[in-house]
Amino acid sequence: MAFLGEKKKVLDTQLTKAIEKLHAPQKLKEAMNYSLSAGGKRLRPILLLSTIEAIGEQESLGMGTAIALEMIHTYSLIHDDLPAMDNDDLRRGRPTNHKVFGEATAILAGDALLTYAFECLIMNSEQLSETLKLNLTSKLARAAGPEGMVGGQQEDLNAEGKELSIDQLKAIHHLKTGRLLTFAIEAGALIGGASTKELNELKRFAEHLGLAFQIRDDILDIEGTEDEIGKPVGSDEANNKSTYPKLLSLQGAKDTLNDHIDQALTILESLNLKSSRLKQLTHYILDRTN
Amino acid sequence: MAFLGEKKKVLDTQLTKAIEKLHAPQKLKEAMNYSLSAGGKRLRPILLLSTIEAIGEQESLGMGTAIALEMIHTYSLIHDDLPAMDNDDLRRGRPTNHKVFGEATAILAGDALLTYAFECLIMNSEQLSETLKLNLTSKLARAAGPEGMVGGQQEDLNAEGKELSIDQLKAIHHLKTGRLLTFAIEAGALIGGASTKELNELKRFAEHLGLAFQIRDDILDIEGTEDEIGKPVGSDEANNKSTYPKLLSLQGAKDTLNDHIDQALTILESLNLKSSRLKQLTHYILDRTN
Repeated sequence: MAFLGEKKKVLDTQLTKAIEKLHAPQKLKEAMNYSLSAGGKRLRPILLLSTIEAIGEQESLGMGTAIALEMIHTYSLIHDDLPAMDNDDLRRGRPTNHKVFGEATAILAGDALLTYAFECLIMNSEQLSETLKLNLTSKLARAAGPEGMVGGQQEDLNAEGKELSIDQLKAIHHLKTGRLLTFAIEAGALIGGASTKELNELKRFAEHLGLAFQIRDDILDIEGTEDEIGKPVGSDEANNKSTYPKLLSLQGAKDTLNDHIDQALTILESLNLKSSRLKQLTHYILDRTN
Repeated sequence: MAFLGEKKKVLDTQLTKAIEKLHAPQKLKEAMNYSLSAGGKRLRPILLLSTIEAIGEQESLGMGTAIALEMIHTYSLIHDDLPAMDNDDLRRGRPTNHKVFGEATAILAGDALLTYAFECLIMNSEQLSETLKLNLTSKLARAAGPEGMVGGQQEDLNAEGKELSIDQLKAIHHLKTGRLLTFAIEAGALIGGASTKELNELKRFAEHLGLAFQIRDDILDIEGTEDEIGKPVGSDEANNKSTYPKLLSLQGAKDTLNDHIDQALTILESLNLKSSRLKQLTHYILDRTN
């Protein structure tokens, strides 16, 4: 999918520019940039931009929100990798932020990305109405905050060493990864000017996509190679983590993954979208190897 | 100053309510609330509300911004106290957040307060125009982010074990504590509808107040009692930190403190303010014992 690479390039440039122009301590900027440019797939901002396109509007309208979203995703990875959290040494095949810059700077780089994200959203959305900018800002804060992603990380901590039911696992993933993915699509729909019906259907689509994404992640931890996933294979098993394959069997997880992909595609078919990018992204999530 | 106690009470109630209504993991809410209700002076939000009053508008207009500001101040204390940062066991005479809830939850509670602050600002400012809400949100993000408070914390880290000049020390404090204090007063002026001249003078006032606040802090670390300041006396000396008394002598620091207070009061005299609260707060900063 050539468009993935093209969009990633545009986003990479915007993100680098946003950090470069900061009047901030050099080490802090380096730490922020290190994780931002660590080869992420840019899935969330690409979903956002592709949703705008699917509704029939110019993607560039969503650039400020897309950048903010990627900064928040990146901050969450930096804090997640800290010794007190997951204590990971590698991320995408490179040493984690705190391994390179030290724990204190890694904490601050995460804080800085989270805070700067809100400024970037507001300052880089000149073409959007004030009402929409406020709506996007508060929705992003909610999706990322205690009722969203951070809440999910806390649930994940609480669940350590416990046997989870499939519903509990789903609930944690809904918060921890689902909320930001759903925000990406909802924000794209709002910026694109989707109808209420389109908005609601796209939110349902996002739920299926988020679950599919997580199940695929769990499967990759078993079937992927270290080269592909950028960290040791089988770490979930080694850490005794509840995963879809563990709770449903590997085949059960694959069936559930296919089921969510089918439902996501069915929703897309039912909408009169202006581009096939969301469909392509759905297939990409099914087939991705990293 | 009875009004300090009254305003603190109103703010305490609003902050507690804001946490209570969250649909979030109980442990996360407890950790957020623990530090928010740890007996802080609420100096920043009180400055904000008092500035609105001084301009002649209703303080309640600024409640959303005041709460957001206190949440961001509180998150910064939680992260500052972490083992990887200042490694403090006590804050205001009570065990620090990570001592009670563990490091992982303390990191998340800080992240949650920072993120939720932006939602609170936007959702609790119904009476303000959309333009003003956006302006306050981006100004708060800038004051707290890599070009502001977080940048100052990084500079502070970089300065560890180094002998600083007085200008370097000032520059660090300007970012680390000055930017949020200045935001408090600037936000109050904007919400109150200050003229450009009033706004600029109040920003100059805020600079002096911020420096006075920090110098008083350094002096208290020498002359205060452990009961008053809630942590061991002399910890700056023990940690070999650059402080105003160390660089200027204790008497020199006191003279500089008085000088900033005088200049702050002179600015206030020159403005036709509707209340004497800012003057009272300036005296409070000079005389405070905690």
